Formats: sequence, C-alpha cells, structure tokens
Amino acid sequence: MENVITYESNPDLSNVIFIEGLPGVGNVGKIAADFLCYQYKAKRLATIFSSELPPQVFVDKEGYFNAVCTELWYMKDIAGHDLIFLVGDFQASTPQGQFELCKYIFEKILKYDPQLVITLGGYGLGEVVKEPQVLAVTNNTILKTQLEKDGAVFRPNEPQGGIVGAAAMFIMLANEYDIDAICLMGETSGFLLDHKSAKCVVEVLCRTLGIENVDTSDMDASIQQVEQINEEVQALAETNPEDLSYFR
Amino acid sequence: MENVITYESNPDLSNVIFIEGLPGVGNVGKIAADFLCYQYKAKRLATIFSSELPPQVFVDKEGYFNAVCTELWYMKDIAGHDLIFLVGDFQASTPQGQFELCKYIFEKILKYDPQLVITLGGYGLGEVVKEPQVLAVTNNTILKTQLEKDGAVFRPNEPQGGIVGAAAMFIMLANEYDIDAICLMGETSGFLLDHKSAKCVVEVLCRTLGIENVDTSDMDASIQQVEQINEEVQALAETNPEDLSYFR
Amino acid sequence: MENVITYESNPDLSNVIFIEGLPGVGNVGKIAADFLCYQYKAKRLATIFSSELPPQVFVDKEGYFNAVCTELWYMKDIAGHDLIFLVGDFQASTPQGQFELCKYIFEKILKYDPQLVITLGGYGLGEVVKEPQVLAVTNNTILKTQLEKDGAVFRPNEPQGGIVGAAAMFIMLANEYDIDAICLMGETSGFLLDHKSAKCVVEVLCRTLGIENVDTSDMDASIQQVEQINEEVQALAETNPEDLSYFR
Amino acid sequence: MENVITYESNPDLSNVIFIEGLPGVGNVGKIAADFLCYQYKAKRLATIFSSELPPQVFVDKEGYFNAVCTELWYMKDIAGHDLIFLVGDFQASTPQGQFELCKYIFEKILKYDPQLVITLGGYGLGEVVKEPQVLAVTNNTILKTQLEKDGAVFRPNEPQGGIVGAAAMFIMLANEYDIDAICLMGETSGFLLDHKSAKCVVEVLCRTLGIENVDTSDMDASIQQVEQINEEVQALAETNPEDLSYFR
Repeated sequence: MENVITYESNPDLSNVIFIEGLPGVGNVGKIAADFLCYQYKAKRLATIFSSELPPQVFVDKEGYFNAVCTELWYMKDIAGHDLIFLVGDFQASTPQGQFELCKYIFEKILKYDPQLVITLGGYGLGEVVKEPQVLAVTNNTILKTQLEKDGAVFRPNEPQGGIVGAAAMFIMLANEYDIDAICLMGETSGFLLDHKSAKCVVEVLCRTLGIENVDTSDMDASIQQVEQINEEVQALAETNPEDLSYFR
Repeated sequence: MENVITYESNPDLSNVIFIEGLPGVGNVGKIAADFLCYQYKAKRLATIFSSELPPQVFVDKEGYFNAVCTELWYMKDIAGHDLIFLVGDFQASTPQGQFELCKYIFEKILKYDPQLVITLGGYGLGEVVKEPQVLAVTNNTILKTQLEKDGAVFRPNEPQGGIVGAAAMFIMLANEYDIDAICLMGETSGFLLDHKSAKCVVEVLCRTLGIENVDTSDMDASIQQVEQINEEVQALAETNPEDLSYFR
Repeated sequence: MENVITYESNPDLSNVIFIEGLPGVGNVGKIAADFLCYQYKAKRLATIFSSELPPQVFVDKEGYFNAVCTELWYMKDIAGHDLIFLVGDFQASTPQGQFELCKYIFEKILKYDPQLVITLGGYGLGEVVKEPQVLAVTNNTILKTQLEKDGAVFRPNEPQGGIVGAAAMFIMLANEYDIDAICLMGETSGFLLDHKSAKCVVEVLCRTLGIENVDTSDMDASIQQVEQINEEVQALAETNPEDLSYFR
Repeated sequence: MENVITYESNPDLSNVIFIEGLPGVGNVGKIAADFLCYQYKAKRLATIFSSELPPQVFVDKEGYFNAVCTELWYMKDIAGHDLIFLVGDFQASTPQGQFELCKYIFEKILKYDPQLVITLGGYGLGEVVKEPQVLAVTNNTILKTQLEKDGAVFRPNEPQGGIVGAAAMFIMLANEYDIDAICLMGETSGFLLDHKSAKCVVEVLCRTLGIENVDTSDMDASIQQVEQINEEVQALAETNPEDLSYFR
C-alpha cells in the first residue's frame, strides 16, 4: 500500500476525540459524520490519497476535478473536547487494505493523543425500521452505563457476525492502545441512504459528547423522503414480498 | 502485509514445543488445540492482529467486542516441556498471506528456541469415518518410529494432494531451520466440526508428548452429538446418496 | 510492486510539459500520443518494466522479442517547451497498481520540474459519434478559459462517474504538488480504436501547446477506415439494435 | 512478496549459462530441464520458498514431506560451460508475483555472471503435432543464425500473443542487463505432458550448447505413451470433433 497525506492546517488540539464516519450500510455513519462536520463548521486537517482507494477523480459543476480521497476534519472546543472526524466517499478496496489504511490513519491520529475513539455505522436489519434504535459496543464499563443513559442499547452478541470494515478496525486499534472505544450503529433497513437512522446516531452521539441543543432540522427534509420510500417499500412487502429480493 | 503483535506476558520458556491448531477441515486441529489449552490452563503469551485476517470484531454477551486475531498461549512443565500453542478463528485470507503470516509468527517462535514443531489438522475423507485414525507426516526417522508406537499411521503419498495452509507452512519452516516437525491429521468426514477425530488427535499427541492420564471426558458430550448426526448422514447416504452433495 | 527503470538518454530538459497517453477507451489517448511522438521524432528517455504490467514479451517480424513496458519519450523545443510523453501497451493490472505505478512514474517526472501535466483519453458515449468534441477538465481557471478558446468543452459533472485510471492519477498527483493539470478526452463510441477522436484531441492539444501547422494527414487513412465501420455499425443499430450489445 | 532461500552448496562457477525449465504448456520446458538435470547428475545449488508458491507440502512414499519450492541445480564443465537450471513444480501464483519472483531469482543468478540465459517452454497449437518443431526467439543476431543451424525455427510474430510467464520474464530481464537470451518452445498440442516435444527441445538445446551424444533413450518410453494417446485423440478428433473441447 502507498499513501500520500497532505496536511492543510496545523492546529493545536487537546482532549481529542476521534470519530470515524465512512460509507457503509445505509451510509448511516457517513451521513451522521458529514452532518456534524457541516453543522459545526469543521476545518480540514489533512487529505489522504491511497492505493487502497479507487484511482479516480470526480468532476464538479465547473469542470474542475476532485480526486477520490479520505479526509480528516477537526472542530475545536465542542463541549470541552477537540474532535477529529474521518470522512470520505470510500472505504479501502480490499480486506488487507482496510487493515493497512486504517492502521496508517490511526498512527497519524495517535500523534494527537486521542482519549476516545468512536466509530459510526449502520446495522442492517433487511426490513423497514420504523423507530431505529442505536446499538452500541464498547470496551469500557463506565462508557457502557453512560451510553445506556444516553439512549444507546447493548444487545448480547449483536450485531450477529460482528462488525466489519473501518468501524471495526478503529475500535480494534484503539483497544490495542488502551484507548476507550465505542461503535454506534443505527438500525436501518439497509435498502437506502438512511437519514433517519443517522439522526438517531447523531442524537445519541451528541448526548454522549455532552453537546446540547444540536439543531438536526437540516436532516428532516431528507428523512421525509426516506420515510415516504420506506412506506412504499413496506406496502410492497405486504402485497408482494418477493419483489424485495432486489434490495436484499 | 502488516501485523500488530502485543505480548501479554514474558515467561521464561525452555525445552519448547510449538503446536499449531488453527481452523481447517472439520476444525479437528482447532478443537484439539483449544481443548488442551483449556484443560491445562494455558496462559496468553501474545495476540497478533494482521491485515491477513478479516477486518472484523465480534461482540460478546455483555456488548463488549473482541477483535479477530490469532493468539499464542503457553503452558509450562508439561511432561518436561514448555508448550506454545497457536490458536485463533481464522487462517490467513490469501495464499500469499499464509506464507507471510506464518513466517512472521514462526520468527517470533524462533526466539524461544523450539525443539519440535507440531501442526494439527483434519484429513477429510468425504464420507463418514467410524473409527478415525490419525495420519502423520514428519521429517525425522526416530519420530516416525515413536509416532507409530503412539498410534499414528503413515501412509505412502497421503494425504493425496499434500497438506496445505498453516499446517503445511509451519512444518516447512521448521524443516528449513533443521527443527524436528510433525503434522498430525485426524481422519474426518469433513462435513462437521469433528470432536471425535480431535479426541483421537489429542490422544496420539499426548502419548508423543509423554502426557499421561489426560482427561478427555469433556469432549464426550460434543462427540455424542457428532456421532448422532453422522448416523443420520450415514442413513441418508444409504437411502439417497445424492443428498450428500451439499456437504462435498 | 517492483519496477525496473532503464534510462536511455540524459537530456537537459527545461520548461517541461508531461503528457500521458496510455491505452484506454477507444485508445484515443494512446493514438494521439503515439502520433505526436512519431510526428515530432521523439527520442526515448527511459523504459519502465513493472510487476503491474503483464509478464510478457512480444515477438517481432524477425523473431526478436520486445518486453511489455511503459516508456518515456521526449522532444525538445516544441513551441517553447520540452515535452515528455508516457506511452505503452498497457495500464497497470490492478487498481492498487494504478496508484503505485503512476506515483512511481510521477516521482521520476518531478525531477524534470514539470510546469503542466496533461492526460489524454477517450470519453465513451456508447453510440456512434459523428463530430467528436473534446471534453476537458482542469484545476486552473486561466487554463479553462484558454482551453475553451482552443476548442475544448467543459460540461458540468462530466464525465459522469468521473475519470479513472492513469488519466485520473496523473492530474490527481499534479494537483497535490500544485502543478497545473489538464485532462483532454475525445468523445468516442468506445467500440473501436478511434483515430478520428484522437485527431480532435491532437488538434486541441496542439493549439493549447501553441504548436502550429501540425500535419495530421497521416491519421486520415485510419480515420476513413473507422468512419466506414462506424457507418456499418450505425446501419446495424438502426435495423437491429440488440446486435450492438456485444460492443457495450 | 517474501522468500526464503537456502544455499546447499557453494560451487565456483564460471562461463555460466542459466536455463529456466518451470512447468507450462505441455510441461515441455519442465520435462526438458528435469531430463538434463537427471542425465548429467546435476547438484542442488539452492532451494527457494516463496509466498508466490502455494503454501503446501507433498508427502512421499515413506511419509516424509517435501515443501513446494523452486530449485536451482548446477552442472560443471558441460561442453565448456557451467550450467544453472531453475526447476520446480509451480510458477508464481499471480502476474505480479511472476515479475517479483523471477526478478528475485534473476538477481541471485547475476552473482554468477551468466553469459547466456535460455528459457524453455511449449508452444501450444491446440491440435495433435506429429513432428514438433522448436520455435525460437532471441535478442542476438549471431545466436539466431546459430539456432537456425541447430534446427530451431524463427517465425515472424510467433507465438501470436507473445510469450508469457517465467519464460518471458527471464529473457526480458537478461535483455535489460545486456545478456544474450534465447527462448526455445517445442510445438505441442498442449493437451498432455509432451515428452516428444521436450525431446526435440533437448536436441536443439544440446546442439546450441555444444553437447554431443546426449542419450535421450530414457525419454522414449514416455514418448511412446504420448504417441499412443495422441493417436487416440486424433481418431476421436476425426470422428467426433466436439469431444475434444474438454482439452481446449
């Protein structure tokens, strides 16, 4: 694996919490992380190009190009912490690359002495979810109690089959370095980009971080769209269950 | 390939025998190794995370997570030897990774100056095995005589097609370093987790190691289950042979 | 990845423009680059053998062999610039290799202090193109204005799905090093080697480079062939559209 | 890629010719190389284990194991030259590995200052070959004349599609180091292990090396077997051509 990292600022960060929000099931983690970066006017810390991401550029409305990359963004003084987010359009292309790219990024993050690592994702149930709950796993008993108070649920041996990809890698790496780690997963059908599930994740996350009065109204328009499609899917499921096989 | 190794103890080991018991055909090697580690209260020596293992964590009954890894466990003073076991839930994901990960682990083991390397596995026959024999291969004539006395069998050119994976890699590497090496393979249908075959491997292994009076009664409940399923498979095979194709 | 690079000359180059013309959709970029190298009697700068290219040699008319490789060629004093071309018969075999091989080559090019990086390619429309336009993307507003004057077109968010492969990698790398970058893509059906589209790319490129009176008449014989086949394809498409599925 | 090389002797070699004979079409190159090593009582120079070979051991008639590897063998004073052969049961598993493993081996061979590199292979025609010719390619005009005198043939642009794998890699690498290189390919149906084609390659090779009176009678039993099967295949082809599809 080869990477190119470009730092775009050199902030003095303390009391750091690292939050991963790359694409995945229902894009729940990505939507949640992108929303918080936008809402709190995050600044770009670094851009990472990697042989484990597709060799590809996208073209914008003006005909300029943007290369596929993953990015680190930061916000200072959010309820007493500085936050670093990992966001982007892709996870690594191969299982081997997941390990190597996440390890590479984690070693960059270690320099900021993170006190807590949080990964965000979706928990695909394969059926329409009316009231998505936020499933959590952690390596810390105090955090577990706190998360339950904040509205997250813990269920024995769930997700079945475990957690895979970047959401798994960063809590694994954190644990190896004796850093507290949480994975928050919003329940989702997995059929669509799920803004509603992402909103639930944002709400639990903000409570856990001590962020008050986060304004999630910007998410509501997208949620209404998802709701409507879900209702149609639900109706379809009731009349013609086999037609859902495409989504599964 | 990238790995992270974490040592969890620093024992003073001598007269070391290294035993590999990773998953494989019928999980015979894994069941045998896990049983001995449990029975003799092995202690964890080191945990190895690797880009050649799935990027995945499992969740336990309390909602805490355990990352996919391979582990080294040890037991001191077992019939005059200190034993190091390699156990885990996965072998490496790719053929290239098998070589690289096993070589990586073997180089860690070399520091303990092993006198003998033993790999455990299953020998899949594709049909129900009533009285599993333990097939052996080695690189040492004295060990061959000993193993035959201990109940193992040697058959010309068997396993047909040779031995693959971690069980092959560690005896290959041992041989390159002029270390005595044995592979023990319990005959198994290969259809199921085969505790009965594993018990046979444990018995031969204990005789070869000079371990007396090993209590394998804990394996018997599982064996009875396997026996029963095997009888059903056998009955099926006699009445409707094609229905077994699923297992083959 | 492993590479072997052999330099075949050591020219003193200044005011360098680097132009990539490897195979791709309709081979538009390769045809354009090969034409210019031939027309302006380019000299070979270096040959690059790579584990990311097929392990293969071709045999010529005399029974001598030529190994698969990519090559750098140069021409001095072309409208005030020295040009370096990257040409060859293959792009890298894997997505990971695209990144690593292009990065390797780009680092060799950096030593010549390039002022501009241009990648050439085809833009596959999946249907016969009568008058191919040349689509451009860039990272520089002044170049954008210039390219539009030179006959290139910019279209919002096109190519849809972005640009992939070497054409993407080199403008991505240039951008990371704050070097001006352009990708020129000739519209093409993508069904055939498209000399006509390549000629359009050559014409825009020459205007942008300030090359006057380039004689493209050598391309016309090939173009006539393509035209004729295109007419046949077009006739087929009108009478029997499904028969084109082979090409798509 | 990771390799382990073990040297088993340290001969003083001069005037070295390196000959590759790994498995391939009809195993022509392997049969020819193995025959010459056997006939001239070659001695083992080195054993190479590689992550690019299958992680596998074979079991012999006594129950001892032999790991998959490639091997270098040598013979001194053969018609004025010392010969080093590369033989084994496998080529590298991946295209990338072909490049990397051959380059690794070639760098070991360079230490012996080879004056000539010869690769041996089969040229699969897809139909029964009664009188196999030996096709040659080279990078040297004098060798070309010599080879034609020795009974090899040169055909323009043949093999169509070029030469792939280890046979291509070693003449490519030799050429990059300005070392004379030859590839000899015995025509073969490609359906079977082809001892007859291998014998033709041996005859041309011995003439080119100046080896006189090589006794190829040991190859004749195997050839008769192949002849007989070929006649059956031929008869089948005449009565029922589709039945050959299995071999193609």
